Amino acid sequence: MYNKRSLTNLANLSKEEIKKFIDSFDVLLTDCDGVLWLENQVYDGSPQALNSLRDLGKKIFFVTNNSTRHRDEFLKKAQKMGFTCEKEEIMTTSYLAANYLKEINFDKKVYVVGSKGITSELEEVNIKYSPIGPDILDCDLMTYIENVKLDPDVGAVVVGFDQHISYPKMLKAASYLNDPNCHFVATNTDERFPIGIGGIVKPGSGAVVRSIETCAERKPFVIGKPETYITEAIKKCCNIDPKRTLMIGDRCNTDILLGTRCGYQTLLVLSGVTNLEDVRKWKESDKKEYQDLVPDFYLGKLGDLLTLIN
Amino acid sequence: MYNKRSLTNLANLSKEEIKKFIDSFDVLLTDCDGVLWLENQVYDGSPQALNSLRDLGKKIFFVTNNSTRHRDEFLKKAQKMGFTCEKEEIMTTSYLAANYLKEINFDKKVYVVGSKGITSELEEVNIKYSPIGPDILDCDLMTYIENVKLDPDVGAVVVGFDQHISYPKMLKAASYLNDPNCHFVATNTDERFPIGIGGIVKPGSGAVVRSIETCAERKPFVIGKPETYITEAIKKCCNIDPKRTLMIGDRCNTDILLGTRCGYQTLLVLSGVTNLEDVRKWKESDKKEYQDLVPDFYLGKLGDLLTLIN
Repeated sequence: MYNKRSLTNLANLSKEEIKKFIDSFDVLLTDCDGVLWLENQVYDGSPQALNSLRDLGKKIFFVTNNSTRHRDEFLKKAQKMGFTCEKEEIMTTSYLAANYLKEINFDKKVYVVGSKGITSELEEVNIKYSPIGPDILDCDLMTYIENVKLDPDVGAVVVGFDQHISYPKMLKAASYLNDPNCHFVATNTDERFPIGIGGIVKPGSGAVVRSIETCAERKPFVIGKPETYITEAIKKCCNIDPKRTLMIGDRCNTDILLGTRCGYQTLLVLSGVTNLEDVRKWKESDKKEYQDLVPDFYLGKLGDLLTLIN
Repeated sequence: MYNKRSLTNLANLSKEEIKKFIDSFDVLLTDCDGVLWLENQVYDGSPQALNSLRDLGKKIFFVTNNSTRHRDEFLKKAQKMGFTCEKEEIMTTSYLAANYLKEINFDKKVYVVGSKGITSELEEVNIKYSPIGPDILDCDLMTYIENVKLDPDVGAVVVGFDQHISYPKMLKAASYLNDPNCHFVATNTDERFPIGIGGIVKPGSGAVVRSIETCAERKPFVIGKPETYITEAIKKCCNIDPKRTLMIGDRCNTDILLGTRCGYQTLLVLSGVTNLEDVRKWKESDKKEYQDLVPDFYLGKLGDLLTLIN
């Protein structure tokens, strides 16, 4: 029953099987947007479901590719929505990007293409950074290029979600990265956010990162899922037995793939990006890259777990 | 001597061998930036060299991935620099993008992420388009998303070089492209322009295109080199015998690769992006993808050909 990539619907399991499933993990990593909430809207029943698992003694980590908030803001949001949560349990890519630079004893300045989520985490580890926000082309491009000043103190470029992405930012980032000693860190490469009302596509960090890696002609060190740096950070504060760890997510090419890569059990909830039809196609494929996207379990939404537990 | 990918230095050939080389082609496709000029600076001797080949009866096409100028502007620039040139010989990616839409009888409106080079060519074939220029985020992102209006007449997105690339443009392009019936055309995917003074990297169309294809989760139809649409267009106005056609360029992953793909002879000039050291590495590789980048011939700069011919 618990074969890897069995794509078992948790809702179809017997009471006894559910108990066996719940008993099979000690540590739980959960994605947030699309699993616990959608932007500022909490999903019905998800706080109760997660809190129940905590009451059963599970160690919980909130693992998000979102780089736009400091952990304190994140904590406040989660608690306000009804989740029991501690700061140490929150693994955002902005926190981890700052953490990564601290680990390598980085002592220069960071050129940030991103938001306050990143700069506030850099501040917390005493790393200097360039100003963020709008940086638009307000003159002829040739004039701009002739007059642009690069900051000689910059030794790293960190790229995340930036709603003020612009040509001057791309130009500066790529120019700094032309020095092979300049570090290049990306928070995550999510293509887009879950599509909301009106069919409007909200581009994700991935669109910003790809533009910069293209003109920089370099690949960044990527912090976020499906890359596994995030789990290295968790291992430092918590013993993890991969087989007794569950990764919950709504997106197979980030959450589930991370779980597969780390040898965790995986649970897909259908309240976000990935739909079951796609997963079934991947399950039929004989390519490893598709097989790696297939979760062990799925469920309509996290809140449904509450009924199953009780 | 003329074996494919021989990487022969034209400057080392005897008078007789040069004559044989010149006699070996009837049609010549030349890249512009990095071969004939760098931005607004003509390269010494290149007009004379190209005009000499024309005098010898060669049919010449100016084949550029640049999408920022209308052919008329381009013609004026080339003629002012001393090149003999006719409008019909100029193949810009903006002209070809407009031409492509005309060929498929496109009758809706184009959302353009690009410059006047594109819109002026669309005008010439009577295709409607959205306004270009700055389109910045001037409010909170959620407010923007709630209020953004998509134009129901848009049926294609054309992306080229856009120094006013912004998050709202990425969002609109990706939202239009969420309709699978919306055409997606990119002028070219050049990563960056040749690096000029001060180590400033000037991002190319490729950085803009990659950002949009990432959040659109779709690949565009690419007009420019190394894709071969450009040669389809040339074939319509000129008989081409691939073996008797020469492609000249400064960039192996666009110019030379196009030549290889089409079975043309290829000549790399070292006055632009690609350096000889890289080419020699590729020549030693046993991978086809690297071999395809290796030209038959190379030369310091196009102007040197003049001395060799005379």
